[in-house]
Amino acid sequence: MKQSPLVQALIDAFTCLPGVGARSAQRMAYHLLERNREGGVALAHSLEAAMSGVEHCQRCRNFAEASLCPVCADERRDHALVCVVESPADVLAIELSGEYRGRYFVLMGHLSPIDGVGPDEIGLDRLANQLHDGEVQEVILATGTTVEGEATAHYIHEMAVANGAAVSRIAQGVPMGGELEFVDGVTLAHALKGRQPVKN
Amino acid sequence: MKQSPLVQALIDAFTCLPGVGARSAQRMAYHLLERNREGGVALAHSLEAAMSGVEHCQRCRNFAEASLCPVCADERRDHALVCVVESPADVLAIELSGEYRGRYFVLMGHLSPIDGVGPDEIGLDRLANQLHDGEVQEVILATGTTVEGEATAHYIHEMAVANGAAVSRIAQGVPMGGELEFVDGVTLAHALKGRQPVKN
Repeated sequence: MKQSPLVQALIDAFTCLPGVGARSAQRMAYHLLERNREGGVALAHSLEAAMSGVEHCQRCRNFAEASLCPVCADERRDHALVCVVESPADVLAIELSGEYRGRYFVLMGHLSPIDGVGPDEIGLDRLANQLHDGEVQEVILATGTTVEGEATAHYIHEMAVANGAAVSRIAQGVPMGGELEFVDGVTLAHALKGRQPVKN
Repeated sequence: MKQSPLVQALIDAFTCLPGVGARSAQRMAYHLLERNREGGVALAHSLEAAMSGVEHCQRCRNFAEASLCPVCADERRDHALVCVVESPADVLAIELSGEYRGRYFVLMGHLSPIDGVGPDEIGLDRLANQLHDGEVQEVILATGTTVEGEATAHYIHEMAVANGAAVSRIAQGVPMGGELEFVDGVTLAHALKGRQPVKN
């Protein structure tokens, strides 16, 4: 390919991003070179700072640049209430709902023995310590509704019960604004099974 | 937002890429942080190197890190034949076809008086010098088939003719593998108008 090696290297580097193939990578590289060099330099600096500076919170395993993430460091949050999620994106989604005032525990994955992911790989030894110390009173299981997510939830449920903590699972049912006819059967079955008495 | 400032800065920086909104930016940042920190660091280095090191070829205005781009520096190319295109991506597309052995002139845009883009902004003063020096014998117009692309082609046509160079426009017609019934009317009209005698 008769192309400047620096440009080609940049195009190749962009393909490490999820959902970016050769064509999008080329478009990104040309866009930055032609129209937004400052943006490109700023992106390079942000990348470098984040890749070297972002560690995991020692308490909840979410991304953090100090030893505690902003949520764990916030004394106004209810530290006896722990919501267990699979990824930092889940934390963000729950935070955006604005309804939750407890803290989190981020597994960074789910149990998957076939891939060699056991309890220790998703930090459950640390969660066990926190449960054992008695600082956690309620565990909310917000892992995914996949087979692995359910298995992980079940495992943590047993762990929490053994340590005397209350355990709940986030409700599964019909999403808001969802039209009933387009909701799949499994979700409908869960919605019926999890029906709540109507308060007067 | 209760999120590590470095992570938030990275997500914001990713939105400077074309076609990347808040959600994709978040996905990219989390992907690199969770699974590919080396890739992130490599991308940062490539970005920095390209943003500061990539200039324009002094001859054809394509991206180059030396004073001449690889095509212009290649003595085996036919330097009397110049293909005028709008962007470096067009050069890449023509190079990939493997059919062209001349060199290029990259406008980095097209004439658009309403946006303040005149002949000098797209480097036509430099092309005029090359035509005047007599080193160019044929100009192939490969600007886009938009109104602006056609206007630009027409302008360069006049310029080349005034300097005694031959001028051609790349053929417009039915694309290979295209089914006739799905080809639009304007393209079909061009295909009929540009019909070629069948050789025996």
